[in-house]
Amino acid sequence: MKKFKKLEPMDTGSLVDKVEIRLLAFFKENNLVPGDAIPKELEFAESLGVSRTVVREALLRLRTLGLVESRKHRGMILKQPDIINNFSRILDPTLLGEDTLKQLFELRLILEMGMADFLFENRDPKDMKELEKIVEAEEANSPGKIRFALDKEVAFHGKLYQMSNNITLQGFQNLLLPVFEYVYLKETKNEDFDDYHFSGGKFVTHRMLLENLKVGTPETFRNAMRRHLEPHFDNAFKKNGIK
Amino acid sequence: MKKFKKLEPMDTGSLVDKVEIRLLAFFKENNLVPGDAIPKELEFAESLGVSRTVVREALLRLRTLGLVESRKHRGMILKQPDIINNFSRILDPTLLGEDTLKQLFELRLILEMGMADFLFENRDPKDMKELEKIVEAEEANSPGKIRFALDKEVAFHGKLYQMSNNITLQGFQNLLLPVFEYVYLKETKNEDFDDYHFSGGKFVTHRMLLENLKVGTPETFRNAMRRHLEPHFDNAFKKNGIK
Repeated sequence: MKKFKKLEPMDTGSLVDKVEIRLLAFFKENNLVPGDAIPKELEFAESLGVSRTVVREALLRLRTLGLVESRKHRGMILKQPDIINNFSRILDPTLLGEDTLKQLFELRLILEMGMADFLFENRDPKDMKELEKIVEAEEANSPGKIRFALDKEVAFHGKLYQMSNNITLQGFQNLLLPVFEYVYLKETKNEDFDDYHFSGGKFVTHRMLLENLKVGTPETFRNAMRRHLEPHFDNAFKKNGIK
Repeated sequence: MKKFKKLEPMDTGSLVDKVEIRLLAFFKENNLVPGDAIPKELEFAESLGVSRTVVREALLRLRTLGLVESRKHRGMILKQPDIINNFSRILDPTLLGEDTLKQLFELRLILEMGMADFLFENRDPKDMKELEKIVEAEEANSPGKIRFALDKEVAFHGKLYQMSNNITLQGFQNLLLPVFEYVYLKETKNEDFDDYHFSGGKFVTHRMLLENLKVGTPETFRNAMRRHLEPHFDNAFKKNGIK
């Protein structure tokens, strides 16, 4: 029997998908940078041999992603994509599966453990004073308590993200907030969780983290932060009996 | 003179923007979850009192973002957005500004410093064996050298991300790879950088990180990783004279 050459699978991607990929490749090959004008819809359609409708839809996608923008009387130009804005529309906890939520919460733990060097590098008197005020406000409202309301948690940890001096990281934190709140509220529904926080008296408070940031090193701060986040780590690792 | 009420600024967002926002709110208010069918284009147009063209464009955007998808004969359904895929189209280093690149590179340092607990929690014999092989391959190819080629760096650190057992983090690492490569190549163009790596003989190698992961703790591993990443941190903090 005659040996046939392998029949390659059909390429079932839509024409718009293909045009989108071709346009991105075109920008790259021509070394276009943000601010550069790009050819008109009609020119693309003629070069690619496809309808204007297809090109328009592909360009619309790129506009949705913030990669191109229309300028009055100037046609379209390439744009530096806003990573954070792009993310913000899709990060609705109610639309994300449990697995993704868990992973994003773990990502928060990783970020807060990892940012110590940047906090020590960038801390300045003004920020330290603001952090001090945040801690004082907490203590005034919840004397003797170790656990604070969600808004206090967000105020303290949000300030740390801000002090990291990395706008992409801050933006990331801002848009992950709904996810953190969602997981936090789930955790706190469990009554065991409050008991846990008080166990052994070794819990590291926001006050202790603040003092550490004043006189410690990135290394001592990381260890303190690890203790502070202990209940969340144990939750992630299913070690605290919380279901 | 008669005191006027304040004249509120005009809302200049486009109609499509507004429809997009209204659709997202509609999904939320109705507690729709991924897999649920959504009303037809025409129904949305009638309810909102706008043209079908406007609704179509808003739905197209949501499809571009991966929030809805079309099913044959079943209309459109809500979809769990793929965070990583969404990101991947916009993360081209040539389209990102220097500031964003710097921030994404810092983010990498933060992630690698922060992931230690997850590595120790999830390490298993199979992964450790693979990591061992990666280190052996490095050593065989570059005897006596501390610095390795980009592909060896990617193999080792990529394996660590994989061992973190967090698919979102892994996906994030994969799509940040072009950014890392871009910054890595910029760093290595600078001749001072190689000298730096060898200074003081205190550089922590991949082999040392591997041994640490075998017998150490998350704390010792973080400190070792900090030493391993020292040249990059110093570069981020402009401490090593690299311009």
